[in-house]
Amino acid sequence: MAPSRTPKYLTGDENAINEFLDKFDTFLLDCDGVLWSGDHIFPGVKETIDLLQSKDPGKRTVFVTNNSTKSRAEYLKKFKSKGISATVDDVFGSSYSAAIYIKRILELPPPKNKVFVLGEAGIETELESENVPFVGGTDPAFRRDITEADFVGLADGSALDPDVGVVLAGLDFHVNYLKLATAYHYLLRGAKFLATNTDSTLPMNHTFFPGAGSVLIPLTNMIKKEPLALGKPSQAMMDAVEGKFHLDRSRTCMIGDRLNTDIQFGIEGKLGGTLAVLSGVSKKSDWEAEDAVAVPAYYVDTLSDLRGPGQ
Amino acid sequence: MAPSRTPKYLTGDENAINEFLDKFDTFLLDCDGVLWSGDHIFPGVKETIDLLQSKDPGKRTVFVTNNSTKSRAEYLKKFKSKGISATVDDVFGSSYSAAIYIKRILELPPPKNKVFVLGEAGIETELESENVPFVGGTDPAFRRDITEADFVGLADGSALDPDVGVVLAGLDFHVNYLKLATAYHYLLRGAKFLATNTDSTLPMNHTFFPGAGSVLIPLTNMIKKEPLALGKPSQAMMDAVEGKFHLDRSRTCMIGDRLNTDIQFGIEGKLGGTLAVLSGVSKKSDWEAEDAVAVPAYYVDTLSDLRGPGQ
Repeated sequence: MAPSRTPKYLTGDENAINEFLDKFDTFLLDCDGVLWSGDHIFPGVKETIDLLQSKDPGKRTVFVTNNSTKSRAEYLKKFKSKGISATVDDVFGSSYSAAIYIKRILELPPPKNKVFVLGEAGIETELESENVPFVGGTDPAFRRDITEADFVGLADGSALDPDVGVVLAGLDFHVNYLKLATAYHYLLRGAKFLATNTDSTLPMNHTFFPGAGSVLIPLTNMIKKEPLALGKPSQAMMDAVEGKFHLDRSRTCMIGDRLNTDIQFGIEGKLGGTLAVLSGVSKKSDWEAEDAVAVPAYYVDTLSDLRGPGQ
Repeated sequence: MAPSRTPKYLTGDENAINEFLDKFDTFLLDCDGVLWSGDHIFPGVKETIDLLQSKDPGKRTVFVTNNSTKSRAEYLKKFKSKGISATVDDVFGSSYSAAIYIKRILELPPPKNKVFVLGEAGIETELESENVPFVGGTDPAFRRDITEADFVGLADGSALDPDVGVVLAGLDFHVNYLKLATAYHYLLRGAKFLATNTDSTLPMNHTFFPGAGSVLIPLTNMIKKEPLALGKPSQAMMDAVEGKFHLDRSRTCMIGDRLNTDIQFGIEGKLGGTLAVLSGVSKKSDWEAEDAVAVPAYYVDTLSDLRGPGQ
């Protein structure tokens, strides 16, 4: 069903909110821009999650994030510190999505099943949880300047692990020339090119910094081919979420702040509904535009508006 | 005049070679792929340059390269080590072109005339030669991991030099997240975005490595705007070459191995001729293709074929 061009505004409308909540068993929630901005949690978020979970029957809340630098366990720590009730199984990150995709969908035959990681510890932890072997990542051997010997070893292949069949790239605060050159030479030798996500920027400290998409775009530029991105809006992520939680998609709603990731993710996944919040990146004018990438079915000013007026 | 679709083949044809040489006073020569590949000089190159210079009247030879990591002085050392006769004034690199552009064309009013450099010492040396103030570059303060304090300082501007009005990016073997984030925040604050060149790859050790274009593309991806590139085929570089050497363009010929940089550079610069050599990147099939980016007027297998048959 094509999305309506006029999303329903729920803020302050108790009847509409109740009708909305009754339609769904499961809520997939984006984190940054919905729950918090960096370390600053929005007011009423904890109470709203509590409300959803305490309904009869209780709503399932699943947190779906494109941030690949943290593992699910690290995310859980952040939830706990903010008082939000969640278990590690309720958190679904793009690193985890990528690990599941590599392990269960790609099913690379050993020994050519190693992953070269351009990214941080979050990716490594999730690959480990799926028993996927990897090199690169946070290994100090790659956190240094490139040398003449590296150029020679990459050119003749002696510096490369012959078992690497995948390059998985995400946000890497330690990106450097050596890592990019190494990843590129694996790709030249036929490794599959995967990305946790391709967001160009990372919202932080009320401004933006280079995101995963900007860390890995040198590779795209050299091999002239886009990676398969496994974060939102990729439906590989939706399939992985569904496989894990056995969702009834028609009774599931995606809540997020970005039209081109969250809302598109829900619409392409044929979920029963999508809810935009205005506390993050996208604005009302974005879906009112003629060329809007996606239009939500509902919207609120902030997540805590779901508690209803007077809360 | 539109370039011919059937370039004249000079190899082994003494009359055609003499006619070709008589047409020009000045030859602009690309270096990599024409004179040498990395450290390996092609046979007969020295003798060919000697021949051109010893004609009566002597031909002027100007070396025009997109490699920004070396200054003219460093290039000259390489020429000397290979026995090629040249002075520092005969060498024209994309770093020098950028320095001249910033100094003489942009003419930024002080104090907002500093350049943030994403690149190596070659760029710094050329900026110094034109008395252009700069920060970044090879400064060890930027050759390290990004810290929490950097995120704060970049977000609130306290880590930025208020006098920076230009970001100049080129090949940087020491690229990292801190440098990219810093360059991005200068651009967000309105700095002009210049590049020495945008070649995606760098030919080395008989294979390829990340080029200037791949080092700087994260910035393009974040600000959604291309830099002004000052290397070939940019006509800013041709204007700078002409300004320095007072060329008669109709009696000048560009010699190079890449259609989309060298040959296009000569054609767009309305030079009297262009000569492709087949010792580098582009092949005959590239200009025979229906969608060829540029077609040379002449071609030879290797530069030394200009000495004529039997040499």
